[in-house]
Amino acid sequence: MRWWGWGDPQHPPGLPPHALKFLRDTVGVSAKPRPPVALEHVRLPTPTIAVSALETLREIVGSENVRDDHADRVAHAAGKGYPDLVRLRAGAPQGAPDAVLYPTSHEQLRALLSACARLSLAIVPFGGGTSVVGGVEPLRGAQQAVLALDTRRMAGVLELDERSLIVRIQAGARARELERWLGQRKLTLGHFPQSFEYVTLGGCAATRSAGQASTGYGRFERMVQGLRLVAPAGDIELPALPASAAGPGVRELLVGSEGVLGVIDELSLRVRRAPVERVYEGVFFESFSAGAHALRELAQLHAAPDVARLSDEQETRMSLALAGSGGVKGRLGRVYLGARGYAGGCLSILGFEGAPEEVHARRARAREIVRRAGGLPVGRSPGEAWVASRFGAPYLRDELLTHGVMVETLETATRWSNLTSLHGRVSSAIEQALRACATPGLVMCHVSHLYETGGSLYFTFLARQSEDELAQWQAVKAAASAAIVEGGGTITHHHAVGRDHAPWMEREVGEQGVRALRALKEELDPTGIMNPGKLLP
Amino acid sequence: MRWWGWGDPQHPPGLPPHALKFLRDTVGVSAKPRPPVALEHVRLPTPTIAVSALETLREIVGSENVRDDHADRVAHAAGKGYPDLVRLRAGAPQGAPDAVLYPTSHEQLRALLSACARLSLAIVPFGGGTSVVGGVEPLRGAQQAVLALDTRRMAGVLELDERSLIVRIQAGARARELERWLGQRKLTLGHFPQSFEYVTLGGCAATRSAGQASTGYGRFERMVQGLRLVAPAGDIELPALPASAAGPGVRELLVGSEGVLGVIDELSLRVRRAPVERVYEGVFFESFSAGAHALRELAQLHAAPDVARLSDEQETRMSLALAGSGGVKGRLGRVYLGARGYAGGCLSILGFEGAPEEVHARRARAREIVRRAGGLPVGRSPGEAWVASRFGAPYLRDELLTHGVMVETLETATRWSNLTSLHGRVSSAIEQALRACATPGLVMCHVSHLYETGGSLYFTFLARQSEDELAQWQAVKAAASAAIVEGGGTITHHHAVGRDHAPWMEREVGEQGVRALRALKEELDPTGIMNPGKLLP
Repeated sequence: MRWWGWGDPQHPPGLPPHALKFLRDTVGVSAKPRPPVALEHVRLPTPTIAVSALETLREIVGSENVRDDHADRVAHAAGKGYPDLVRLRAGAPQGAPDAVLYPTSHEQLRALLSACARLSLAIVPFGGGTSVVGGVEPLRGAQQAVLALDTRRMAGVLELDERSLIVRIQAGARARELERWLGQRKLTLGHFPQSFEYVTLGGCAATRSAGQASTGYGRFERMVQGLRLVAPAGDIELPALPASAAGPGVRELLVGSEGVLGVIDELSLRVRRAPVERVYEGVFFESFSAGAHALRELAQLHAAPDVARLSDEQETRMSLALAGSGGVKGRLGRVYLGARGYAGGCLSILGFEGAPEEVHARRARAREIVRRAGGLPVGRSPGEAWVASRFGAPYLRDELLTHGVMVETLETATRWSNLTSLHGRVSSAIEQALRACATPGLVMCHVSHLYETGGSLYFTFLARQSEDELAQWQAVKAAASAAIVEGGGTITHHHAVGRDHAPWMEREVGEQGVRALRALKEELDPTGIMNPGKLLP
Repeated sequence: MRWWGWGDPQHPPGLPPHALKFLRDTVGVSAKPRPPVALEHVRLPTPTIAVSALETLREIVGSENVRDDHADRVAHAAGKGYPDLVRLRAGAPQGAPDAVLYPTSHEQLRALLSACARLSLAIVPFGGGTSVVGGVEPLRGAQQAVLALDTRRMAGVLELDERSLIVRIQAGARARELERWLGQRKLTLGHFPQSFEYVTLGGCAATRSAGQASTGYGRFERMVQGLRLVAPAGDIELPALPASAAGPGVRELLVGSEGVLGVIDELSLRVRRAPVERVYEGVFFESFSAGAHALRELAQLHAAPDVARLSDEQETRMSLALAGSGGVKGRLGRVYLGARGYAGGCLSILGFEGAPEEVHARRARAREIVRRAGGLPVGRSPGEAWVASRFGAPYLRDELLTHGVMVETLETATRWSNLTSLHGRVSSAIEQALRACATPGLVMCHVSHLYETGGSLYFTFLARQSEDELAQWQAVKAAASAAIVEGGGTITHHHAVGRDHAPWMEREVGEQGVRALRALKEELDPTGIMNPGKLLP
């Protein structure tokens, strides 16, 4: 992974000319490209960890599994949020771990937590490092030093129960690798967050992740059948069970714990038989509210596709503009849509996966509901275009940063009756905040996860970076967050809390809810070494 | 509700002659009927609550909402578990609340909890009083006295959001009343536990309930979108949201809290459009394992009906025997089944609900899967018979007790690969324990809730009551519980923990899991007034 951005360092750079022109015309770009500094120019704080403490850690995991070289520290200095990238590219991350640990077994993990509690060393669990909310920031809190605990060497498949469709894995396993392993056995997990290529499954569990196909396959917490949390105070091991009425949902309590209670090192996950057929198609709606109505109908009539997305007018316009003449735009054509009164409308992508006859039946039913709700099916091209580029946004973000363009995403969920109102409210808040920074921008949104009672909203905004890009980002983020919670949305639908959303947790679960979570943390992590500064305000 | 048993006091008593004969021939019955004592002969402990404390409570809720007469104390002296009924019928409950509180508002509830914490009064939240695991036993723990807190006067519907399909209610509302209210609006909650006629929705939330149609409508925790818990330390109010990634699942933590953290006084529940068509039909399988295989296929191919039940051989035999000549037995006939090699087989009930065309399509698909798995559809009679008697078992239990027959149920869930093994193990354990009491009995079981990764097992056993019926019950219950946890099942799939399963909680969530729950309790209920002796070992 590129230390300063996303993905494979070999990924070809560059924006297509028409995209660059579009940006120049709409939000403006910097006069000349702003590449990241060279790795060796990244400034890191001097480690504060005692030599004897490092020695103790080396005794536990072996010297080869304790790294404190520049490259390793930089690679674990931040996640992949916009402010992370701004700082990394400038060579000025907010901090860095004193060292990076790569334990290889549960026993090592237990020994590490004990040693760190004794030695006052903060631990930041680090899976794929893909957090966009500051979830892996190397904060030491009240401890003497801070270590990243990288789980990549605990990444095996432990057991496959094909009859029960449960796979037990070490939680450092990556979503992409597990999906490949399952695919060879005609199975799938069906979890495809945008970070799919790098994210670990432990990270997905710790952050209550939802993937692009969560409407069909369920959010990550629905996949978790059992798990083990290794906490400083001890392990909590929950065997894989389909359901239980044995008291409060302890499993649900550990899912979403974001490393502040301990490290999730084992997971039992529900898998499914791999789909034989996949059909992704486009549907146009006259307006965002017409499309939202159709998605609501699909969800409430239990006819939802596995992937269901609805772009608002702005996002639809931008997708068509960026698609270029060979893509969606060319094939659909404004004339075609305009002729039917859908100019300025909203594009929706519906994706169905399964056995052929099942896909056929579900599509037919969904199509009928969609048509009744005023949708205009426009064939598979838009769906296929989306599938082809579904993991592409983070690469694009790097290009935008190079051209001096801020790009950020944030998400929420709310009940159906509040969806279009919240959409308007948050869009306006972001627009106003950008204008207040003298950098008017583009604000767009899509619905991407359907539930019977509501849906998610995923906002993307673009603007020219101002002089102080971090203050600019902070102002917009604060305005959007306030609009979300005041407008009746959750502060996060699938990005988690991390550091960025921690100030909003009290709005989410109340003062007493925060106190309850704190009590839990004090029990499991009495000296406060686990991921300081995250989740709890 | 009958104080000594189940249901409407006007319910006609008596067993049909063929059923009594069946019992006499199989497990044996007592020489003469054993009716319950008269209400006035029930012996209650002398209240220990101070007069001044009672006065304080009266000031908070009004004199009419604090009751300490004999009838009210008896009605709140126990739940509806087998040992509860044995003791009540003998006029010797284990205890009784000093008084019963009937608060009418959130403000009163808050004031009551504060006063009780100050005055050292234990509170047992009491909804429908239908717990079968000792969940409402009036234990005072370390407090001076114990009060039942009956929620029946906080039972209103607060808000219906038809677009989001969310209803907000006061949690003292009863499932049956809410279902009726929703039905008038062409909506349904779809939650039908066997206690449906009396259970409150707050009770369902507090006990992580699952209804007979949970395969289709989901367990109760899936219905809860938001809630308010009133705890001694403060309220936790979670607004109705379809989903969130904001940290650990606090909502899931309060669902299943069984009154030990506080009182759930408000709920936002997901509802659905009421089904227009309902088809319940019977399918025969050669064996329990063949039927379990078919149910697994249905669940894993996402073709499960809304209600899916599979009786084992013993339960099927007993159902046919008890159905009488006019019912299932007559219409099916042993000859018919025998001719096709299904004699000694297993009856399954599959129920589909929804719009007519949807029911038609789902039935067709399920039927194909079931046939491929060796199932023999036998028409609607068995399904209709089941629907007609679905809430009848607790009435029958009263009759059996009158005839000196012990009847008890217990349940678990496990992964599919372990289902038939666990079925065998628990059945044997119960049989052996009954034989060891010199009261060999009937042990039967059904699967009643399907998940992709596993299913539930619901055991019923009958035997002649021994001299010491409670010791007899305790011996069998302990043997069954040990077999469940050692065999890889959860100690409870939908009856909750209460007092009976508390000793097994550590097996369920581990020592550290129990400590985490205790820490949570200490935060929310620092003086330990909430439902002492339940849930936590």
